[in-house]
Amino acid sequence: MATSLISRQLAFSLQKNVWLSASGCRYVSKAAAKTQVEFDYDGPSMTTTVPGPRSQELMKQLGQIQNTGAINFFCNYEESKGNYLVDVDGNRMLDIYTQISSIPIGYNHPALLKVMTNPNNLSTFVNRPALGILPPENFPDKITESLLSVAPSGMTRVQTMSCGACSNENAYKAIFIWYRNKERGPNTPTNEELNTSMINQAPGCPELSILSFMGGFHGRTLGCLATTHSKAIHKLDIPSFDWPVAPFPRLQYPLDEFTRDNAEEEARCLEEHGCAFHVDEVQTGGGGTGKFWAHEHWGMDDPADVVSFSKKLLSGGYYHKDELQADKPYRIFNTWMGDPSKNLFLSEVLNVIRRENLLEQVTRSGKALLNGLYELQAQYPSILSRARGQGTFCAIDACDDATRDRIMLKARDKGVLLGGCGDRTIRFRPALVFKEYHVNLFLNIFNDVLAQHK
Amino acid sequence: MATSLISRQLAFSLQKNVWLSASGCRYVSKAAAKTQVEFDYDGPSMTTTVPGPRSQELMKQLGQIQNTGAINFFCNYEESKGNYLVDVDGNRMLDIYTQISSIPIGYNHPALLKVMTNPNNLSTFVNRPALGILPPENFPDKITESLLSVAPSGMTRVQTMSCGACSNENAYKAIFIWYRNKERGPNTPTNEELNTSMINQAPGCPELSILSFMGGFHGRTLGCLATTHSKAIHKLDIPSFDWPVAPFPRLQYPLDEFTRDNAEEEARCLEEHGCAFHVDEVQTGGGGTGKFWAHEHWGMDDPADVVSFSKKLLSGGYYHKDELQADKPYRIFNTWMGDPSKNLFLSEVLNVIRRENLLEQVTRSGKALLNGLYELQAQYPSILSRARGQGTFCAIDACDDATRDRIMLKARDKGVLLGGCGDRTIRFRPALVFKEYHVNLFLNIFNDVLAQHK
Repeated sequence: MATSLISRQLAFSLQKNVWLSASGCRYVSKAAAKTQVEFDYDGPSMTTTVPGPRSQELMKQLGQIQNTGAINFFCNYEESKGNYLVDVDGNRMLDIYTQISSIPIGYNHPALLKVMTNPNNLSTFVNRPALGILPPENFPDKITESLLSVAPSGMTRVQTMSCGACSNENAYKAIFIWYRNKERGPNTPTNEELNTSMINQAPGCPELSILSFMGGFHGRTLGCLATTHSKAIHKLDIPSFDWPVAPFPRLQYPLDEFTRDNAEEEARCLEEHGCAFHVDEVQTGGGGTGKFWAHEHWGMDDPADVVSFSKKLLSGGYYHKDELQADKPYRIFNTWMGDPSKNLFLSEVLNVIRRENLLEQVTRSGKALLNGLYELQAQYPSILSRARGQGTFCAIDACDDATRDRIMLKARDKGVLLGGCGDRTIRFRPALVFKEYHVNLFLNIFNDVLAQHK
Repeated sequence: MATSLISRQLAFSLQKNVWLSASGCRYVSKAAAKTQVEFDYDGPSMTTTVPGPRSQELMKQLGQIQNTGAINFFCNYEESKGNYLVDVDGNRMLDIYTQISSIPIGYNHPALLKVMTNPNNLSTFVNRPALGILPPENFPDKITESLLSVAPSGMTRVQTMSCGACSNENAYKAIFIWYRNKERGPNTPTNEELNTSMINQAPGCPELSILSFMGGFHGRTLGCLATTHSKAIHKLDIPSFDWPVAPFPRLQYPLDEFTRDNAEEEARCLEEHGCAFHVDEVQTGGGGTGKFWAHEHWGMDDPADVVSFSKKLLSGGYYHKDELQADKPYRIFNTWMGDPSKNLFLSEVLNVIRRENLLEQVTRSGKALLNGLYELQAQYPSILSRARGQGTFCAIDACDDATRDRIMLKARDKGVLLGGCGDRTIRFRPALVFKEYHVNLFLNIFNDVLAQHK
C-alpha cells in the first residue's frame, strides 16, 4: 500500500529534476571516498558466467534437499564487502538487489562486525528470549534507541516480530481487534462470541476483511496472501479469505507529463474510506527512498494508523497508534516476537545512517540513478520505458518479460546484480551506501548491455 | 497434532514404570556432575518476590511502548547459566519452562559461546542472506549436518523458515499445492484458475481445509489460527477460515488404569482419513520427550507426511516426503526463509546432545519427574491430578485455574519457574540438560509449596 501515494509527491519532486538528454555519454566514475574504501571493492570482477561451475555443483547438492528453482547462485559472504557480493566462483558483482532489499549498509560493514566481537553482546545472541514474557533488562532501552528513534510521525508504540509476513499478519490482527472493540464499546465479549471463535465461526470470528490493492505484495502466509495480488503463482491452490481487492492507480510516466490524467486515476482508486489504514513498509522502509519511511514523502499530517516493517530493519514488527494496541495480553503474541540480536545490529545501522548522512547520500544517488535511467530509456525507447522511483528505490520496464530477463542475465555476467518484479520490470534496491560512483559504474555497464542487445 | 497419538505409547511405557507411593519423602539432591557445574549454578537463590522492584520499574518503562500484560519479569541473560534463569533483581530460578520450551541445552552453554567467538562464523551473523535465491556456500553442508542429521524417518527434504507459525503456514501451503496437483494430474493450471486466484476466488483459491484437533495450538497467524483451538482469547475477533475441527481424545489418567476406555475414545476421534498428515512438532520436537521427535514414540513405519519444527531447533521449518515438494520455485518462498546463524548454533546443539547422551538423560530425568508427580498427586489428591508425560515433556492438572496460578506464583517465589497451559494445567518444559538432580530440587520445592497451600 505504501507505494499507492508516493507517486503524488514524485509528481512534484521530479519537476525539479534536470532532464539530462545527452544520450550515449559515459559516466565518470570517481574513486570511492576514503571511508567507503575500507569495506568496499573498487568495481566488479568476473571470472566465469553466472552461475559458475561451483555454484552449479552446489545447486545439484541442494537439489536433493529443496526446490532450487529460484536460486541465482551460491555466495561467499566472507569475501563480500560493501556494495559487492562475491560468489563461490570468485565473481564479484555490484549488488543492486541486496538480498531482496534487506541489506541496509552493505556486506560486512565494520560497525556490524564490531557488534559481534563486543563481549557484552554475546549473551544476546546465545540466549534467544521469549520477548513477550521474559524480556532482557536492556530491551526497553534498546527498542527506544533503535526502533523508536525512527518511529513514524504520531506513533510511540511498536510491536516486534521476526519477519515481514508475521509483521503484517499481526498488524492485521491488531486492526481486527481494534475494530471489534470499537463496535463492542463498553461491553465485554459475549459467551456466544467466545464459543463460536473456538470453532472458527462468526460472530466470534467475524466476517471482516482487509481491502488491498491489485498488484500489491504483502507476504505469503495465508492472511497476508489474501492481500497479495501480484502473481498467480503465489496464490494458486492456496485457500483464501474472500477479501475484496481495490484497483491500483495505473499511472503514466514520466509523472510530470501526465499530472491531470494521473490525478483522476488516483481519485478513482481511492474512493473507499472509514477503516484503519495500514501502510506496509516492509520493503520501502529503512531509507531506500531517501527518507526513512516512504510514506514521509506524502507530506501528510496523519499518514497511517499502522506501519509494518522488516528487511532493512533486520527483524520485523509494526508501529501503531495508541488505540491500536490490543486490549489484553496474549492477543498479539508468539514465542519469540522478534530477536533482540537483530536489534543490536539495527542500533548500529542507525548510528551509521546518521553519522554518514546516508539518507542524503541516497537522495543524491537516487537522483543520479533516475536521471541515468531517463537517459537510457530515451536512448533505447524500444527496450526501456516508465523509469520511475524515489531515492534509489527505482524501477524501469522492459518491453517484455523475455527481454527483461535477458538484460538482467547479461548485466549479471558483466558484474551487476539486479532484481525483477511484476511482468517485465527491473527493480533497483541497492544498500544505503550506494553512491554516485556506484550509480555511474552501473549505468556504464547497463549501457553496454543495452547497446549489445539485439 | 503430535500429542494426539503419543498417549498410545505412553500406555505401554508407563506400565513398566515403578509406581512410587512413599508419600512425603524428601528427594536426595546430589551435586551436579562436573561437566554440568561449569555452566550451571548449584540451586535457586531468591532475594525478592518476583517480579522484584527493578522488574516492576522496567515494566512501567516498556508499558509506554507495548502491552506488558504477559510479561513475568525482566531477565539478566548474561548471568543466567545452564538450568538457571537470573532476573534483574538478582533472583536465580530453576527454569522448567525455558522460554516456552525453546532453550535446548540451557543458558550460555560454553559450546554456543564458542560458536560466537569463532571468527569463521562472523559473516554468517552479519550478512543475513535471502536463502531462497542466494544461499551461502556452506548451506547444503550445514543443513545436512544439522537438520538432515535428525530428519524424521522417511524424510530427506527440509524447508527452513524463521519461526513456528511460518513453518506451519508453509507446511499447510505445501499440502494444498500437493493436493491440487494430485487432482490436476498431468494438466497445467487453467486460465480460470490463474485469474480467479488473483482475486481470492475459487477455483484458483480452492475451498480446501486443514482438519485440526479441538484443544490444539498451532500458531497465531491467520492460517495457523484457523487450526488453533486452545483458548478463545487467541481467536476472538480474528476472521477465520471455516475449517472443521475434530474432537481430541479426552483420555483418563493414569493411562494403564483406563486402557480400554482410552482406546475407544481414540478410535472415536480418529475416524477421518485420506489426506496428508501433518505432525506439528514445533514444541514437541528437539528431544524433550526422550526421543528427538515425539512421533517416534508411536513406533509407526510411516508416521507422517510433513513434520514442522521450531523452538528447540532455534529456527523453524518443516520436513516433508519427496512428493510434498512444491513443483515450482517461488510457491514456497519468502525473503529470509530461515536464518543460517541459527543453524550454526543448532549444529553445535546436536553435537552436545550426542556427546552428552542428552536424550538418555531426558529419559532418566523424565522418569524421575513423572514418578515424583505421581507421588505428589497421591499425597495431595485435592490439589493435583492427571500427571502425565513422556520424557521431561510432562504436565499435571490443578483442581482449578486459580489454584494452578497460585501454586505457580508461590513456586516462582521459591525459585522454580513453571509454565501454565490449558485451563488448569502446569506444563514442564525444561532444557535437555535438566538432570535427576534438578528434578529432586524441583520436587522438594514443589512439595513445600503444596504443603503450605491452603
